[in-house]
Amino acid sequence: MKPLILVTNDDGIGAAGIKALIEVAREFGEVLVVAPDSPQSGQGHAITLEHPLRLYKVDLFEGITSYECSGTPVDCVKMAKHVLTKDRTIDLCISGINHGSNSSINIIYSGTMSAAMEASIEKIPSIGFSLLDYKMDADFTAAQHYARQIIEKVLKNGMHGTLLLNVNIPKRPLSEIKGAKVCRQAEGHWAEEFIPNVDPNGRPYYWLSGRFNCEDSGEDTDIWALENGYVSIVPSMHDLTAHKAIPAMKFLDI
Amino acid sequence: MKPLILVTNDDGIGAAGIKALIEVAREFGEVLVVAPDSPQSGQGHAITLEHPLRLYKVDLFEGITSYECSGTPVDCVKMAKHVLTKDRTIDLCISGINHGSNSSINIIYSGTMSAAMEASIEKIPSIGFSLLDYKMDADFTAAQHYARQIIEKVLKNGMHGTLLLNVNIPKRPLSEIKGAKVCRQAEGHWAEEFIPNVDPNGRPYYWLSGRFNCEDSGEDTDIWALENGYVSIVPSMHDLTAHKAIPAMKFLDI
Repeated sequence: MKPLILVTNDDGIGAAGIKALIEVAREFGEVLVVAPDSPQSGQGHAITLEHPLRLYKVDLFEGITSYECSGTPVDCVKMAKHVLTKDRTIDLCISGINHGSNSSINIIYSGTMSAAMEASIEKIPSIGFSLLDYKMDADFTAAQHYARQIIEKVLKNGMHGTLLLNVNIPKRPLSEIKGAKVCRQAEGHWAEEFIPNVDPNGRPYYWLSGRFNCEDSGEDTDIWALENGYVSIVPSMHDLTAHKAIPAMKFLDI
Repeated sequence: MKPLILVTNDDGIGAAGIKALIEVAREFGEVLVVAPDSPQSGQGHAITLEHPLRLYKVDLFEGITSYECSGTPVDCVKMAKHVLTKDRTIDLCISGINHGSNSSINIIYSGTMSAAMEASIEKIPSIGFSLLDYKMDADFTAAQHYARQIIEKVLKNGMHGTLLLNVNIPKRPLSEIKGAKVCRQAEGHWAEEFIPNVDPNGRPYYWLSGRFNCEDSGEDTDIWALENGYVSIVPSMHDLTAHKAIPAMKFLDI
C-alpha cells in the first residue's frame, strides 16, 4: 500500500510553498492536506484551547484530499491524527515549504517546525522544509529538488518516529547548491528591536522587529552549512531534557 | 547589589499564581514583573508578529515595578529584556506559578515554560513553576515553600544561563510532599478528543479536549516523581538537536 503523507504548513493553505511541497509529496504516496486557513508564522507550539476550531474540506489541489483549519499548525496535526485518520497510520508528516529560514533557534518560534514536532510526539516521522526566501513568489525549484531526495531517502531508510528533521534550503539556484549536510542546531539569538509608535488614538504601541545573531562558529552547524551553500538537515527531538546537566544539578535534590 | 529577578507567567497578571511567586521573589532581590494582560495558556513559544504590542505600567503589587503586556509570555520576556532593562542584567527569570501541570511533553505547549525558554535563549537562568491544580483558588503554600528553596539554591550555586528548570509541584499539603527530585522529562502524549458540535448558525465546530497518557515507566522521570509525592525538577534546554541520532542520519548527506 502507498504511504499516507500528511502535508501542513504555517504560511496558510494558500501559500505557494505548500503547493510546491504537495507536488513533491504526491510522487511518493497518498497525500492528505490539513493546513491553516490563515498565516500562522511565529505561532510556535501554540494550541487552541479558548476557542472552537473549524475544519472545512476544500478543493484546491487536484485529486488531493484537503482541509483548511481555523487553528494553529499544531492544531492541524492534531485534527489530522485524531479526527481525520483515526483508524489509519500516517506514515510521514511534512510541513512547509516555509517562506523564510527556520535554522538555529528559529525552530522554536516556527509554526512549520512545531507541526513537525507535534507529529513526532505522535511518533509520526516528520520533516519541516524552509526556504531562505521570505518572498511570497519565491522560486521553490531547488527546495523541491532536495525535498524530493530527502523524502525518498527517509521513506526508504526509515526514521524513528520520535525524530523530526529541520531542513533549510539556501536562497540559491539549484546549480549553485553544493549538497545537503546533516548538522546540529547553531546557538544564536535575536537582537530584538521593538519599534515604538503612537496609534491614531494617542496610545503608544511597539512592533517586534530585530536581527538574528549567530554566536556559534562551529562548522558542524546549520548556519555554517547554509552560509556555505549547503542544504542543512538537523535531526531534532521533543525531549527537552538537558541530560548532560542532570548530575551537576543534583544540588537541587531536596 | 541585589539580583534583578524578572517574574512572568501565562495565566495573566491577575492570576493568584503570579502573586504567590512575587511574594517569594521579593525575598531575594529586586523584582520586575512583566506579564500578559490576559490568559495565554497553551500559547507555546508563540510570538506576536502580525499585531502591535501594548505595554502598560500597572500598580498591582506593592513596591514592585510591574507591567502588563498584550502579547504572549515570550513577548513579555522580550519586552523585559529589550525595552525595559536594556542596560541592566536580568539575573534570574521565574515564570508561574502555573495553575496546572507542565510535566512531561507539556513543557512544549506551555506558555509558562516558553517564557523560561526565551530567557534561556537570552542566557538568563530561568525557572518555570507549575502546581498540579487547575483551580483559580488553588493553595500555593507548598509551591511557595519549594520555590523559595529552589530559587535560594540556584542563586547560591549558580546555573548556566542556557539552562531552564521545569519545576512541577504535586497537589498535596506541604507535610505530605516527600522532597524534590532532579529528573528527566517523561515520554507521553495526549490522547486527544475533539468534541464536535454545531453552532447557532448551523456550522460545525470542534473543541479540543483530551487525556494525557504517560508511556514511560522510568523511575527517573518527572511523572514518576509527581505520582510518588515529590516535586519534579527537569533541567531543560533550547538546543533541540538529537545529537545521538546524527551518526545514524548521515545517509542524508547528499
